[in-house]
Amino acid sequence: MSRSKGVKKAICIMSGGMDSTLCATLAIKQGYEVVGLHFDYDQRTMSREKRAFNEVCDFLNIKNRISLNVNFIAQIGANALTDFSLNVPKDGLKDEVPITYVPFRNGIFISIAAALAEKEGANALFIGVVEDDSSGYPDCKSDFIKAIENAVNLGTKDTTKIAIKMPLVGLSKAQIVKNSIENGSPLQLTWSCYESEEKACGLCDSCRLRLKGFKEAGAVDLIEYKN
Amino acid sequence: MSRSKGVKKAICIMSGGMDSTLCATLAIKQGYEVVGLHFDYDQRTMSREKRAFNEVCDFLNIKNRISLNVNFIAQIGANALTDFSLNVPKDGLKDEVPITYVPFRNGIFISIAAALAEKEGANALFIGVVEDDSSGYPDCKSDFIKAIENAVNLGTKDTTKIAIKMPLVGLSKAQIVKNSIENGSPLQLTWSCYESEEKACGLCDSCRLRLKGFKEAGAVDLIEYKN
Repeated sequence: MSRSKGVKKAICIMSGGMDSTLCATLAIKQGYEVVGLHFDYDQRTMSREKRAFNEVCDFLNIKNRISLNVNFIAQIGANALTDFSLNVPKDGLKDEVPITYVPFRNGIFISIAAALAEKEGANALFIGVVEDDSSGYPDCKSDFIKAIENAVNLGTKDTTKIAIKMPLVGLSKAQIVKNSIENGSPLQLTWSCYESEEKACGLCDSCRLRLKGFKEAGAVDLIEYKN
Repeated sequence: MSRSKGVKKAICIMSGGMDSTLCATLAIKQGYEVVGLHFDYDQRTMSREKRAFNEVCDFLNIKNRISLNVNFIAQIGANALTDFSLNVPKDGLKDEVPITYVPFRNGIFISIAAALAEKEGANALFIGVVEDDSSGYPDCKSDFIKAIENAVNLGTKDTTKIAIKMPLVGLSKAQIVKNSIENGSPLQLTWSCYESEEKACGLCDSCRLRLKGFKEAGAVDLIEYKN
């Protein structure tokens, strides 16, 4: 509820994937005291993502971490990550918004993160959205993030000022891999696959984007793949 | 995920209190097919509010109702409604934001409601915020609601268009009581008290605002009070 002058404190939304892990790494490099925020929502790879979140936090020495259960997202449904009767597409990205889109997920995540930021006296919130080289989810676009930043600052106390940082928004996946290596972000601990918890499937959109990034960056992905 | 042309469908956020109950009543009068959305978050009067929500839905013949558990709000804490070590103030409203303010609660509720609206193909979302004659929570102001409406429409699919309606925002509590009576909104089934689940305390800010509204409207409140 209070904030000491001069202290830089940030809430980092961390899925355990490589984008949000780089975000947290950059927040630390920028001198922020980081609070790691993770969400569980009965998604297919919930346990694996949580393990990745914790291993990344250990690596980055993020002690203040919080994992919140938001499984009402599964209750709302309408997406292939929580509705197991829908298949995760494996035939490559299309032009339309894919069935893995979870309705307004980042809106929900940012709103909760804003509440936590207000409580913690944090002045920044980091989110690893990527606009172009991505699945095309509407809640990953910079115009949306700017609009919700405005809403967050209008809807919290006058003394609460929260800057929403999206340092990856304009990057390609290859640039994210290169930046991760340059900044010591622990790519080997991250998890991206939408479907599998042991070895990554290599075929879902998230695996495809990750593999393309490593390939174009000329780097080796150390996690194991089935295919 | 689909919307038939010409169908008016609205998500109504319903706490079980008199403001959101009037909102739902007005939505029905305006011809909307209503989905009642209620939130549980381990607040002091959770059971009583849920009972009110269900009784109001029964009365208004709202069959499509959903109750979501958002008790991460209690995990975040920092408010007297979920943190039982903090006392609910009973000495009248002050100029500052009271300790009953739940950080960015309406931001969280609206984001979740927007996800549900996108899934249900609803084109409106009703929320019973009151700006002036209220506790002064920052997330009840019209500027905030307009800003998050903009964010919701940018962060959802291009085909999703959601108007956020706040028909009570400029009303006094007395006008809300009068409008409720005129429109047949079931005031007798609603619950406002922050603290008690059997008889209303009559002293918390929410009871005080309710009682002032009935008094100024020259109407009788049929619920029971301790004091």
